[in-house]
Order: sequence, then C-alpha cells, then structure tokens
Amino acid sequence: MQSPVLSHPSERETSLVNRIATPEQKAEFLDKADHLPRIQLDARSTSDLEMIAIGGFSPLTGFINQADYNGVVENMRLANSTPWSIPVTLSVSEEVAASLKEGGLVRLDDPSGRFVGILELQEKYHYDKTNEAQKVYRTTEDKHPGVKVVYDQGEVNLAGPVWLLQRDPHPQFPSYQIDPAQSRAQMQERGWKTVVGFQTRNPIHRAHEYIIKCALETVDGLFLHPLVGATKSDDIPADVRMRCYEIMLENYFPQQRVILAINPAAMRYAGPREAIFHALVRKNYGCTHFIVGRDHAGVGDYYGTYDAQQIFEEFAPGELGIEPMKFEHAFFCTRTQSMATAKTSPSSKEERIHLSGTKVRGMLRNGELPPPEFSRPEVAAELARAMQVTS
Amino acid sequence: MQSPVLSHPSERETSLVNRIATPEQKAEFLDKADHLPRIQLDARSTSDLEMIAIGGFSPLTGFINQADYNGVVENMRLANSTPWSIPVTLSVSEEVAASLKEGGLVRLDDPSGRFVGILELQEKYHYDKTNEAQKVYRTTEDKHPGVKVVYDQGEVNLAGPVWLLQRDPHPQFPSYQIDPAQSRAQMQERGWKTVVGFQTRNPIHRAHEYIIKCALETVDGLFLHPLVGATKSDDIPADVRMRCYEIMLENYFPQQRVILAINPAAMRYAGPREAIFHALVRKNYGCTHFIVGRDHAGVGDYYGTYDAQQIFEEFAPGELGIEPMKFEHAFFCTRTQSMATAKTSPSSKEERIHLSGTKVRGMLRNGELPPPEFSRPEVAAELARAMQVTS
Repeated sequence: MQSPVLSHPSERETSLVNRIATPEQKAEFLDKADHLPRIQLDARSTSDLEMIAIGGFSPLTGFINQADYNGVVENMRLANSTPWSIPVTLSVSEEVAASLKEGGLVRLDDPSGRFVGILELQEKYHYDKTNEAQKVYRTTEDKHPGVKVVYDQGEVNLAGPVWLLQRDPHPQFPSYQIDPAQSRAQMQERGWKTVVGFQTRNPIHRAHEYIIKCALETVDGLFLHPLVGATKSDDIPADVRMRCYEIMLENYFPQQRVILAINPAAMRYAGPREAIFHALVRKNYGCTHFIVGRDHAGVGDYYGTYDAQQIFEEFAPGELGIEPMKFEHAFFCTRTQSMATAKTSPSSKEERIHLSGTKVRGMLRNGELPPPEFSRPEVAAELARAMQVTS
Repeated sequence: MQSPVLSHPSERETSLVNRIATPEQKAEFLDKADHLPRIQLDARSTSDLEMIAIGGFSPLTGFINQADYNGVVENMRLANSTPWSIPVTLSVSEEVAASLKEGGLVRLDDPSGRFVGILELQEKYHYDKTNEAQKVYRTTEDKHPGVKVVYDQGEVNLAGPVWLLQRDPHPQFPSYQIDPAQSRAQMQERGWKTVVGFQTRNPIHRAHEYIIKCALETVDGLFLHPLVGATKSDDIPADVRMRCYEIMLENYFPQQRVILAINPAAMRYAGPREAIFHALVRKNYGCTHFIVGRDHAGVGDYYGTYDAQQIFEEFAPGELGIEPMKFEHAFFCTRTQSMATAKTSPSSKEERIHLSGTKVRGMLRNGELPPPEFSRPEVAAELARAMQVTS
C-alpha cells in the first residue's frame, strides 16, 4: 500500500549471480581436487567467496581482475562503469602466485582446511597497497584494521570466477540464513514494493529502534540485516546480538513488517566506501532503501561524521539503484518525552539521555541496567546476562 | 548536510510565474478600470487569482482554457502534458459571458467589491459540470462541498492570463505571508537541499508532530504550510490554528529547521486529485517532498483511505518534481511508550491512545483537556481557551 517509490522497482531488478556449484559440478570438482593447486583462504576471503556465490556481491562472479580493480580503487566503479566501492580480491604471495597457471583451476580451502570452493584463475596481477589503502580507506596507517589486512596480505591478486562447493546451513543461525534470492522472494510474497535495509554490528538500543521505525513509516518493510561475518574482537558477539534482535522484534515491532536475516559479509571498516558497499549488497537482497547513520562503518577517528552520508552524492540519482536514508544519532529527549535527534528536537544537552557504548558496557559488567530511555528493559537484561557470563 | 536526494534539486527548478502588476501596469489598469466590464469574484476565485499571481500555481498564468481544461479533467495534465490535477477556472453565467468580448480586458473585483485584478479574456467555453464532478471529485453528489461549488457556478468558463493589481499584506498573518519566491530564497539561504511540505487545516496534535518529525529526520527542513483560505465552516478558525503552530514550534521543534507560512489557497476537498494539487503547489514553494496522510484532503466518505496516496502512482518517477511521503494515522502506543502507527507498532487496539476530532472538540467545549499523549498541554490549553470563547 505504502511506497515513496524513490527508486522505481524496475531500477533494482539487478539479476542475481549464482555461483553455487550444481551437484554435477561438485562431483567433477571433487574428482579433480587432489590434483589441483591449493590455497587456504582466511576468514574474510571465505566470507567473500560465500557472498559472491549466493549473489550478495552481484554482479561480481569472482575475485576482480586488474581492470575492475583499477576502476573500483580509482573511481568506485567496475571497468564497465557499474558502481562498486570495495575491491573484492584474493591475494597470495609472489611464490604462490608463481606456482599457479592462468587458465587453470585452483582449489580453495577455508581456514579449517576444508575444501570449499574453486577459482577459475584468469589473471594474476600486482597492485599498489599504499594506493589502495589511501583511496579505499582514506588512510595509509596500519593501525586501521582494514588497512592492516591489506598490508598483511600477499603481493599478487588472483582473479577469476569462483564456485562455492555447496551451501551449508549456518552453524549458529540456520533459520536466519536467508540468501538474496530468498529475501527477494519473501519481499515479493509480502507485497512489499519498498524495503529499507538496516546494517548493524551492535546490540539494538532505542536509538536504533527509533531510526529504523522512522524509516519504516514511509516504506513497506524492514530488512534487519546484522553482520555476523568477521568483526573486531571488542564487538558484542553475534549470538548475543541476535537474541537482542529477537527480543526487540517479539515485543516492539509488527513482525509481519520485518525480515531478520544474517549478513555473512566481513567488516572492512572502510567508512564511506563501505557505506556504498553495504547499500549495494542490500540492493541485491531486495532493498530499495538503506539506512546510513553517522560515521557508518567507521572505526577510530578516520572518517568525518558525515563522510559516509556525503559519499552518496558522488553518484547520480538512480545510479546505485538503492536510496540512502540518512540519519543523525538519536537520543531520548526529556523535553519532548520522545526519542529524537538534533534535527527534530530543540532540547539542550542536559535534556538528552544518551550513553556511550563504553559506558553501557561498564554498567552491564557491574550488573547495572541502562535506563529504559536508552535500552528496552528486556534487551538490557539479556545484555547484562551475557556480559556477566563472559566477564 | 542531509539529503535523501530523491528528486534531484535540478528537477524542481520550475520557474515561477509572477503576475503581480508592476506600478506602471497598475496605473494603466486603474485608468481603464471604469470603462471595463466587471466580474465579482467569490472567495475561491479571489484566492485562485492570488495563487496564480504569486506563482503558487506555476506554470498557470491565468484561468485555464478549454484545451488545458480537458487535459486536466481527463488526464490530470495540461495540454502540454505538464501534470496538473485540479481545473482552476473562472465561471460566469451565459448572460455575463455573452456580454464579454474575447480579446478584451475584464476587471476583477473581490467579494467586497474592491478592484483586485485583470483578466485578459482569450477564450470562453462551455463545460460539462457532471463530468468535471465525476472525474475530479469522483462523485456527482451535490452534498460534496467541492461538487456543490461546481454545480452552483456559471455555465461558461472564462480563460486567459490574469494580473493581480497589487500584493497586500495578509490582514491576519502578515509575518507568515511568505510567497513562493521568498520561501525558495529562505530555503536556499538556510542551505536546505531537501524540504518536506506539510499541508494542514487542523490544529496540530502529537500525531501530526510525530509524522512531521519522522519526515524531518531524513530531510533538511520543514515547510509547515497551513491552509488559511476558504475552508468548511466547522474547521477550527485559522487564527487559533496559527497560535497552536507557534506554540508547537516554540516548545517542541528546532526552529531553525522550520519555516511556517500561510497557504492562501482554498480547499476543494477533492481528496486524491487535491493531494496531487497540494504537492505541485508545495513544489512551487520550494519543497522536494510532501507529506500525504490517510484520506488527505478528503471529506465525508467519498474517498478510500489510501486513494490520495495511490494516485501518485499514476505519475512516472520524477514527473511531478516532488516526492510524496506517505504516512498512516499515528497514535500514542502504551506498549512502546512512543508515538507510532500500525506500520511500526505491534500494539493491540487497547494499547493505542487515539481520539477522534469530534471527541476532542466535545472535551474542549466541556473544559476538559485531552491527555498529553494526544495533545501537547500548551496546545490543548490554547484550544480550550479558544473553544470556550467561541462556544
């Protein structure tokens, strides 16, 4: 019924990549496996392989080649001008690269040594790490967790289409493992013309609830898509976060308007570039709109507060095929007795109830619950329980 | 800083019509006035003349001719395909029409007999009242206040460009008389790239505040534009409503994000067609977005709850040059302890505090104040004061 129809549904009909091997292909790959050169993927590349295979990184069909790499790093676009903001690459050492032949297959193992995929190696190329760091992460400091990964990885990128050997149920959250083709189908079944995606890697507090609901007022549905791939070690564990989302949905949301699904992608902490990336991934999952908060996907002080919102202006209207919805930090305002942001409340600083993540973690460790203006009591109780178990 | 940039600023650069006579033109018209045929306008046509002259009805430069009339009534578009949903016409009796010559000037007097404008009469044409009623108002019943006006007016439409003799300060609200060129300039000065317009003819309760603030979270500014032209006799008087807006802005809004201005247009109560009309008028005032609630501009049971939202789908994306933001009715939800709508709250009926306009008027007449979940106390007090003076 509802739809601001900012991007027309037709604009988002990106066709989805499917690089999950058929049973026949899998049998063939298994036959050859022992005779193929082998690369062990790290957690991030394993996650990238999965995201490519399930269509989450459409239109990518594999790790990108040099022409696409240059386009992405320099202009946020693939060689054919399609917007893409983060290089999805597979890097190996000079020695390993020298041992591999272009035109051949490479066996991909996950960090535990399990055979999980195949790379059809088409191209090997050197790349400039400092340039990638500067252009993609806007810093060359190796203290930046995304830059550190680039500096630590091999000198040569391997490019070519990939195949995921098979799609296994998620070990922790099988019922929330909803791939792009499925989420699109679910949205269509529910008759949603407009859907807003929300990326998160934190427990859901009232500030998030407020922003999500603001967005949900003008679209048909919410795609709540927490990232459960590799994150920083001080982030709250994914299982605790998932329980908080469940509690929130059960008590405070109209459930027929929400799809909760896990995002298997890894965080890069690339701030503005990653906000674009997150939006493009959510378009693949069927979203028409995407929430971009302050310092989205940032880390430390590397990005300006609004950089991740302003970067969307570098694309023409409709070019991304998904519309950002930009929000400020929210707080409980004692003057208006409502959640609000500085855009909607005339409150003074003293009238704003807002706690830092650090402060909340401290309270929870001491067995104190944050106030109901900050966190729903049921969520606070769950976090307190989890913090006391782990501390 | 903020901008969903749904419609690109360039799309809304409609040039504004200005049909206010220059001092030289005015002197010339005054010279001729005594020798010109004279028509006395009713309140609505006087308001139409003003809206045309100040650019609020751009691209109209006068009362529309037969080709435009047919396009508007049949297809919601002028003869040149520009979207326009309500015929802005000047009707006279057969006798009066017969006395007027195409190609001549006609003196326009307001209901008090004051000489206020000039019509350059280009065309006279008959029109089909029943067809206009059915197409524009979706009913031929004369109980509909908009249809009644059509049935009561003359049989012949006079068409041609108009001139407003001079722009007088508004007798009641001179400081809120902000014409389209001025509001656009103010928005530009404030650096607003995106502005949401809110049309209202009712006192502002928390439900409106909630919807407005939801919209304001994702755009740069709010253009609060209450209609003070002709309305139904049982609507709350404009001066009381204006005091309520002032109270609301002083206490509950960040004032630098709001422009409050009066809309001198007359209500037609044409529901869906009028929602489009209201949006187009707000585009002229500089808005990029426009709030469309349930049964917007409706009256009685003539329109389906969502008709005024769905009609926007009859225009291609970008065609109108302004984006609708569609909202449900809001209420205070005791479960989430927040304002909400059925789209964002899982509450049962018992958990929703919502009062009808009739109920609230009854309470106010009896000296009772509606609860703070329904109306801000300062606004309720002002309404109570006004109701007791008038009842």
